[in-house]
Amino acid sequence: MQYLHMRNILIIGTGKSTSQLVDYLLQHAENQELQITLADKSLEQAQKLAGNHPRASAIELDIFQELQREEAIANADIVISMLPARFHIKIAENCIKLGKSLVTASYVSEEMQNLDEAVKEKGLVFMNEIGLDPGIDHMSAMQVIDRIRDEGGKLLLFESFTGGLVAPENDTNLWNYKFTWNPRNVVLAGQGGAAEFIQEGTYKYIPYQRLFRRTEFLDVEGYGRFEGYANRNSLKYREIYDLKDVLTLYRGTIRRVGFSRAWNVFVQLGMTDDTYHLQHTESMSYREFTNLFLPYSPTDSVELKLRHNLKIEQDDLLWDKLLELDLFNTQKSIGLKNATPAECLQKILEEKWSLSPEDKDMIVMYHKFGYEINGEKKQIDATMVIEGKNEINTAMAKTVGLPVGIATLRILNGKITKPGVKIPITREVYGPILKELETYGIVFQEYEKPYLGYNPDRLNG
Amino acid sequence: MQYLHMRNILIIGTGKSTSQLVDYLLQHAENQELQITLADKSLEQAQKLAGNHPRASAIELDIFQELQREEAIANADIVISMLPARFHIKIAENCIKLGKSLVTASYVSEEMQNLDEAVKEKGLVFMNEIGLDPGIDHMSAMQVIDRIRDEGGKLLLFESFTGGLVAPENDTNLWNYKFTWNPRNVVLAGQGGAAEFIQEGTYKYIPYQRLFRRTEFLDVEGYGRFEGYANRNSLKYREIYDLKDVLTLYRGTIRRVGFSRAWNVFVQLGMTDDTYHLQHTESMSYREFTNLFLPYSPTDSVELKLRHNLKIEQDDLLWDKLLELDLFNTQKSIGLKNATPAECLQKILEEKWSLSPEDKDMIVMYHKFGYEINGEKKQIDATMVIEGKNEINTAMAKTVGLPVGIATLRILNGKITKPGVKIPITREVYGPILKELETYGIVFQEYEKPYLGYNPDRLNG
Repeated sequence: MQYLHMRNILIIGTGKSTSQLVDYLLQHAENQELQITLADKSLEQAQKLAGNHPRASAIELDIFQELQREEAIANADIVISMLPARFHIKIAENCIKLGKSLVTASYVSEEMQNLDEAVKEKGLVFMNEIGLDPGIDHMSAMQVIDRIRDEGGKLLLFESFTGGLVAPENDTNLWNYKFTWNPRNVVLAGQGGAAEFIQEGTYKYIPYQRLFRRTEFLDVEGYGRFEGYANRNSLKYREIYDLKDVLTLYRGTIRRVGFSRAWNVFVQLGMTDDTYHLQHTESMSYREFTNLFLPYSPTDSVELKLRHNLKIEQDDLLWDKLLELDLFNTQKSIGLKNATPAECLQKILEEKWSLSPEDKDMIVMYHKFGYEINGEKKQIDATMVIEGKNEINTAMAKTVGLPVGIATLRILNGKITKPGVKIPITREVYGPILKELETYGIVFQEYEKPYLGYNPDRLNG
Repeated sequence: MQYLHMRNILIIGTGKSTSQLVDYLLQHAENQELQITLADKSLEQAQKLAGNHPRASAIELDIFQELQREEAIANADIVISMLPARFHIKIAENCIKLGKSLVTASYVSEEMQNLDEAVKEKGLVFMNEIGLDPGIDHMSAMQVIDRIRDEGGKLLLFESFTGGLVAPENDTNLWNYKFTWNPRNVVLAGQGGAAEFIQEGTYKYIPYQRLFRRTEFLDVEGYGRFEGYANRNSLKYREIYDLKDVLTLYRGTIRRVGFSRAWNVFVQLGMTDDTYHLQHTESMSYREFTNLFLPYSPTDSVELKLRHNLKIEQDDLLWDKLLELDLFNTQKSIGLKNATPAECLQKILEEKWSLSPEDKDMIVMYHKFGYEINGEKKQIDATMVIEGKNEINTAMAKTVGLPVGIATLRILNGKITKPGVKIPITREVYGPILKELETYGIVFQEYEKPYLGYNPDRLNG
């Protein structure tokens, strides 16, 4: 294909998940006449990512500097924001003013949604939620949902789970878990409100203090058994996926079996609380930290108090999980000033759960679709497992970066044209993107299952 | 005593706890030349309280109307605000402008504290925290603390508990509890952050999800055994009472034994959550409400699911407490539109826990003072129990209203003069007030106890 001029793609933010996005765009730079500009507040980090590639250049960009921001965006043909979600809005406003389309992997904020009219007026595409979760989850789910509907089926159940885990060969701790994404979000997961969902037409609510005790099992071929705990807001997918009459709607997070029950110890003790600051945490030992959340006793050990307080049996493997984290260690200290309990816990976990350079991460996604067709009830389960290559080329960076990259080129090349603030749930958008993702090994396995729902005999309950 | 002119006391807000305050002031109206003005947004309610007493009059007052507010305050010699704490500040600002002293039974807010300089400049007294808790607790505790210090003692331990309960003769339910105060505050008690305190020099934190499982027993002569759960912020009393070196500092709320363990069921299920709204609560049965927080099952009963989920044994009296509340009733409905879980629970509880007109309430306060004197460790326990007379003349209204009334007259009569934003912790303030309270039967019993602390053998733990 021939283009009249080089097209400039501006990527703002060059964090963890950007590497594979840049790789993808540079692979296509030559034949698609692309020039990639990497902008970051750290010029060094942007330069590192640009390397010596002739089609890539790096600039320093402080996104709080209006003029700098405008100048960078003015020079671009399309903009990708890989910044944390809260920073997109300033960039989005500039993009409208300067007539540039925008791509992000973040949830559409209310502020972003409010720009819809203005974006439409300018004929621009602001494509959001086009990473992994949100992103691949939307696209893969809507593809099956649309197919079921095309065949005349009626959706009864939709459940969807995603987890960022460690690949089996590097799964070396009792928790079967390592941090493959922002550890802070893992520590705070589930806080800020009850998890809401519907099961067989009945609303269900799980408060934070019960969240990690109300899991369900998921078996993935070749990978064994996982568990899922509920995400906070499943109900919004009723509107997004047009599932208004569905009886069961549930979104969850995947962990290896046993993780949640052990995590619940931290929840119950209060170690995941991020709302207040502790004193003297800099020199506080791990053992002292644990003891903060247990009753005082002049004679009983911290170990016995914890066992007794949370009723942990002598032969429960959960106990070994706590020992593995050195929670009772008197020598190791937190080393953070006036930290919150959650910050202290994160510190303790990072010591044990960080990926080594050669460790591979793994993304697991699991969808269940229950439906009725010609008076018959059926179910399709769709699973995807992606393993990373190493600490840089992670499954996470791949599954976030590739859909962002593909969508960006399709907007740039006039293949995605419907203007407005969008997410990838229409077939003209998700179809070609999923197809291209397949060539990178991002594929779902589908299984026909007997549809049991949660009430196979239609009883009241 | 002769006064040059009639003195006008303005009482703003004529809610539940005002009746005994008005009674007290009217008892002294004749010989102290007092005129009492009762101001409320409901003129009817103010009139009802004023009755036909020649020294009392009622006015309608919308405290959001600046001019109305200023006029009422301008006509007063001293102002009492019995409004909810958040409304005091506007009144306080007018009082400064118009040169009037102010009395409230509420905690000093930051906004109120910020007025200290201005109040001092005008030579006014703004006396706050002069009800029951805060109020009588401050005064009775500081009296013992000052006495111990006068004798050369050094405080080691201070614990203080207060509870509003039902009097033994009207204690007719399995929870041994009825609402004697704002039910909403009871339902939300303990939320919003971990409880912090110190025990034997060690900081301790209890998250909301463990709060009602970490209680301690309190025995009160003639009344049997109670339990206490931790209040959120005990540590601020270190500064207020100048207890900087104390080893144990704990404030708690009193209930009858077994209440907290049963209340924990609501906490664990998520029924006390006030942060989101449920759907269809108007026609929702109590049983459906309970089922919202339990896993779906087509076959198992709500009863069995709850028992299993919270591991409640067959023969546990806790279960009868839940039955007593009709939690599994299919006929009774919540009857509130789009209520929060906490609002629904409150509705269910109010049906069973409201005081009947002839029911008497009861206030229980329990202080523990551990100290060292001449190398010897000692402990004083001080307890107060006040029973109400009926639904109107409650122990709560008495223990809030009397100290407010006494303090008001003492300020008006120039007996309390030290200007500024104050609380009743200095002996010239609390001494005479406690003495007058005694004449109304508000008396503490003191007991010498062996001081064991929490570490009698000085072990590490």
